[in-house]
Amino acid sequence: MRELTLADIDNLVLGATLLGTGGGGDPYIAKLMVQQAIESYGPVRVVTTDELDPDGLVLTTAMIGAPTVLIEKIPAGTEFIGAVRSLAKYLGREPVAIMPIEVGGMNTIIPLTVAAELGLPIIDADPMRRAFPQIEMTVLTLAGIPATPMSIADEKGNQIVFEAVTNQVAEKLARAAVIQLGLADAISCYPATVRQIADFAIQGSLTYCAELGRLLARVQNGTAGAYDEFLTFADGRSFFSGKVVDIDRRTADGFARGTVVLEHLDDADRTMRVEFQNENLIAFEDGVPVITVPDLICFLDHETAQPITTEMIRYGHRLDVVGLPCAPEWHRDGSLALVGPRAFGYDVDYTPMEVAVR
Amino acid sequence: MRELTLADIDNLVLGATLLGTGGGGDPYIAKLMVQQAIESYGPVRVVTTDELDPDGLVLTTAMIGAPTVLIEKIPAGTEFIGAVRSLAKYLGREPVAIMPIEVGGMNTIIPLTVAAELGLPIIDADPMRRAFPQIEMTVLTLAGIPATPMSIADEKGNQIVFEAVTNQVAEKLARAAVIQLGLADAISCYPATVRQIADFAIQGSLTYCAELGRLLARVQNGTAGAYDEFLTFADGRSFFSGKVVDIDRRTADGFARGTVVLEHLDDADRTMRVEFQNENLIAFEDGVPVITVPDLICFLDHETAQPITTEMIRYGHRLDVVGLPCAPEWHRDGSLALVGPRAFGYDVDYTPMEVAVR
Repeated sequence: MRELTLADIDNLVLGATLLGTGGGGDPYIAKLMVQQAIESYGPVRVVTTDELDPDGLVLTTAMIGAPTVLIEKIPAGTEFIGAVRSLAKYLGREPVAIMPIEVGGMNTIIPLTVAAELGLPIIDADPMRRAFPQIEMTVLTLAGIPATPMSIADEKGNQIVFEAVTNQVAEKLARAAVIQLGLADAISCYPATVRQIADFAIQGSLTYCAELGRLLARVQNGTAGAYDEFLTFADGRSFFSGKVVDIDRRTADGFARGTVVLEHLDDADRTMRVEFQNENLIAFEDGVPVITVPDLICFLDHETAQPITTEMIRYGHRLDVVGLPCAPEWHRDGSLALVGPRAFGYDVDYTPMEVAVR
Repeated sequence: MRELTLADIDNLVLGATLLGTGGGGDPYIAKLMVQQAIESYGPVRVVTTDELDPDGLVLTTAMIGAPTVLIEKIPAGTEFIGAVRSLAKYLGREPVAIMPIEVGGMNTIIPLTVAAELGLPIIDADPMRRAFPQIEMTVLTLAGIPATPMSIADEKGNQIVFEAVTNQVAEKLARAAVIQLGLADAISCYPATVRQIADFAIQGSLTYCAELGRLLARVQNGTAGAYDEFLTFADGRSFFSGKVVDIDRRTADGFARGTVVLEHLDDADRTMRVEFQNENLIAFEDGVPVITVPDLICFLDHETAQPITTEMIRYGHRLDVVGLPCAPEWHRDGSLALVGPRAFGYDVDYTPMEVAVR
């Protein structure tokens, strides 16, 4: 067990923006929330599963919606506590810990505020270790763990609890509700025992995220050798440095969908096209897929090395496209059907970025 | 208290088809269900509110969806019990009686099957005394009684319970869920005390419905004077006898919407156009509204006097258009904003059918 310091939170926020892989919502808003929560309720304790009762209940909490809406509709904060309390009441049990549903984007940070307010520890694990646009896209789904009972709450007092026969139906029901409730709401889902989290989730996600953030901050500070050190830690690779020549973005079916086209800074004949659905999904260089989901496609500002979310991209923006390999847990059986390119409707095979043609 | 006989059920089914006012789902399927339920669990007792503990809990149950889908997706039956049990569990209280949410269409009959199976009485009251397409369209909404907590269940085991800040939001959330769950699901909503039902619901709806059915059956049997007797009892009026020359029907936004155009049998220059959204909403004769929601627009087969639902209408069908005045409770303050023509998007004033130009 250790307590999160404010420096930890800065690193987590930077790492989470990167792991948001173009989406996940801007963690900056969540950072303000967690700072306030720690001031009001005291520090957040980070624990591993072996520090908890194996039969204890773990609940998650997250923002659900479209990032394009999230930047205009700031969370009130009360909806997350509302979602967790409503699910705990439905289950008739109190949680022993909170876990992020995704370590990537603002949903990395939001559970910290809930943990602070409820006086519960946060588990150093998650079921994605990146952001994904849909609720069923977790290694818990691979393990057969239901996403429901799930609760949804908004800041006005609307509350929903539901049980779905599959995690795919859970996603559809949640999305349908969220479209009605303004596209920025709180959920609590995947109620599980500590033992299930120990057996099936991705361990150490928060530590990984904070370390990524720490190393990226060194890049931003201009520390010599920091960029190589950052890429080495993450097994990452810089694929492209380009200027945005086209950005197409629309909010449809409860998601922010679109395409970014980059022209290479040094060679105007080279182009990269990145398709996203909240998060970046596929990067094509000259029409050939070079980074494919579940691997991570991250945009870094070419000058500042700041991770850039798709809603912030503008024409003329100079960006580096960095690929990071997905968590090894995503190489388990069934992963590609759940989170591979075809799961998002692309007629493209997954090619691990480590083996992609340069 | 009295027990429902099979003859009562025949009358109720016929009256309910009429009060379905073109929608409400075909009560014939529900009739088969209630016959089986009575065989398995014994007769259903019909009670008035003064026979029950005023503080007792009343729950409703109904099918929600689009009638065009209901005729192809027959209810399993278990979803209604599921919805009631799930809401009772959420509330932490057991109901003392079941009430129909609408006396009109199949939702008149379905609560009888649930009452039989749960061994509960059915209250001779409802909050519509006709069918309406949306959940918030009740006199309980006028009285400020929340439609939620509400449960939704399907035959596969998907279950939702939710609380909405307004009955309008409740409708939107329920509709969004139902669109995901196949457009034919069970709900339980408007949990209320017996006292609230006594104070604000429409009393005697089932008795009214059965009597309408009994009188209409006499019309169908060719009893002399029966048609006048039927219209006199209901304060109804025959507005038009015509042949269907156009029928436009589509399933959109979770509703069956459309238009029927009739040409008068005796005068081809006279036409009547009826607009519907699950239920018939406005009848225009030569462009002038003559029957307007919340008054009831009922189609009777010209030869057999059988009430016809919109999904059964075919080109060339010969129909009588009969208007029935809405329950007097619909003349309370606020009704027109909730269920008048403008509530459905028509730029038409409500004109009580009693005063409409002939």
